[in-house]
Amino acid sequence: MAHRILVTGGDGFVGSHFVERAVNDGHEVSVLDQFSDGCSKNLRSVEDRVRLIPHILDDNDSMTFMDEGFDVVYHFAWNSHPVKAWEQPEVEVQSNLPILLHLSRRAAASGVRKLVFASSGGTVYGASQGLIDECVVPRPFNPYGIGKLTAEHLLYYVQQRYGLATDVYRIANAYGPRQDPARQQGVIAVWMDRVRKGETLQVFGDDQTLRDYVHVEDIAYLMSHSLRDLSHSDTYNLGTGRGVSVLQLIELFKALVDVNIDFNIAARRDLDNASAVLDAQKLLSHFPGFSFQTLEASLPKLWQQEPDDG
Amino acid sequence: MAHRILVTGGDGFVGSHFVERAVNDGHEVSVLDQFSDGCSKNLRSVEDRVRLIPHILDDNDSMTFMDEGFDVVYHFAWNSHPVKAWEQPEVEVQSNLPILLHLSRRAAASGVRKLVFASSGGTVYGASQGLIDECVVPRPFNPYGIGKLTAEHLLYYVQQRYGLATDVYRIANAYGPRQDPARQQGVIAVWMDRVRKGETLQVFGDDQTLRDYVHVEDIAYLMSHSLRDLSHSDTYNLGTGRGVSVLQLIELFKALVDVNIDFNIAARRDLDNASAVLDAQKLLSHFPGFSFQTLEASLPKLWQQEPDDG
Repeated sequence: MAHRILVTGGDGFVGSHFVERAVNDGHEVSVLDQFSDGCSKNLRSVEDRVRLIPHILDDNDSMTFMDEGFDVVYHFAWNSHPVKAWEQPEVEVQSNLPILLHLSRRAAASGVRKLVFASSGGTVYGASQGLIDECVVPRPFNPYGIGKLTAEHLLYYVQQRYGLATDVYRIANAYGPRQDPARQQGVIAVWMDRVRKGETLQVFGDDQTLRDYVHVEDIAYLMSHSLRDLSHSDTYNLGTGRGVSVLQLIELFKALVDVNIDFNIAARRDLDNASAVLDAQKLLSHFPGFSFQTLEASLPKLWQQEPDDG
Repeated sequence: MAHRILVTGGDGFVGSHFVERAVNDGHEVSVLDQFSDGCSKNLRSVEDRVRLIPHILDDNDSMTFMDEGFDVVYHFAWNSHPVKAWEQPEVEVQSNLPILLHLSRRAAASGVRKLVFASSGGTVYGASQGLIDECVVPRPFNPYGIGKLTAEHLLYYVQQRYGLATDVYRIANAYGPRQDPARQQGVIAVWMDRVRKGETLQVFGDDQTLRDYVHVEDIAYLMSHSLRDLSHSDTYNLGTGRGVSVLQLIELFKALVDVNIDFNIAARRDLDNASAVLDAQKLLSHFPGFSFQTLEASLPKLWQQEPDDG
């Protein structure tokens, strides 16, 4: 069944992949994003099949775009990342959270049936260790994860109070086409950019510093689960369950290219989790037979796809 | 060992009982509060032995009071309660949290060794049920509890980043002398006030609506645990572990007074927890032999102590 979907931050990395999938699945998609200089960065392939809403979200915003009768809102817009939030925690509480609260209440008042939120798997769990399922107590310490978790709780309030269904996806370390290496979020994009430029890789951590890398196309596919039932609310981990250490990632990079890779290894930064590996069985139970793209298969493709600007 | 202690909100209900205890234990106590019209409301008994700092906290505040060399800050000041927060959730994120973040970073920068935070046992756990210990996943849905839990997480950030030790007390339903019935928080104070005035009690809930009533003097005593080791950080439930239903509380009130008590029973409000009963074994393990004041023993005392303005 086709739905009318609003995607905030839909011209961003993960958002744009979700927009492509939703359009190709036959949904009617509107994309709200900054669209600096009026152009889409990441939606070339579907630009003529989506409605672009150039807009910067604000908590004093009348949000008249919400009056168009959307069934579902996917909220990807989030003005920070873990490196920035570590330095400027006040942005989370004074910007991202008021916007989310306002947007979700406005959505409920406008007849939207469900809001889907892109949360974070690593930073929300924070100091919690091991293979993490949704029953583990979150222990965020980076303000980015604190902001994401508080957003989840505020959505629970909006759900209880206004009857808006809300789904939350705690997404592990996303990687894939179009990830911006300049954004300081996404080690694979950053490293690939550096290797292309012949620069030294800066590595933080050791063989205990585990990450769960999940391909952005898999994220987009799995997040479409929320469209199957607009009245159901739930919280899902979205990761592969495979922990890859930063040192293993270096080996994968070495296998990728002929050239020598220079790297410096420093201690894990205080702002980063020791490890973040997600058990996503709750979500995957709805996708029998599904298997994730592997780093071994996808890194070579990414290496070939990306523009060589070295 | 005597410490220099700053208590924010120290002229409030729980804060003032902690101030009394700390003064009587020989600590040097400064009390920051509004002190409207220059007077203390709740500190008569120790007024000449504490320093009063009339001040309204603000997140743009230079907080020069922090330069006086405190060892510990007890942070009770919080500008909301569950009824208000349900209507105005933005106050939590736009006022209480920025103030907490600023205060705690300012404390760390000023050489304070530990910050102790008065969190909430009921609203932080929210939809979680049964006898709750600290390993239960918090599921807050009232913005008051969302704000308190986010504050805990922000303190964990400040602890990790700046080395400030932080203790958190998730306090159950406080009651006792000087609780203000006008504040809409504290059913025992509200009911006692109404019974005195011959007014009908408004009861929300049923025999499944359990609360854990803990005497404010016990709270003050148990929170002094944080002064034993200024380098240790932890999170503690602070409740009796005894669940009392609203209907049982009516029976306790009936046993208290000779007059007839009129009451209306309505369904539990959406803003309230179904139940909130705390397992405080982690904290109590540091107080061998301690026992809580019981409602049966303390309600008659309260009934006699309070001014009869009916």
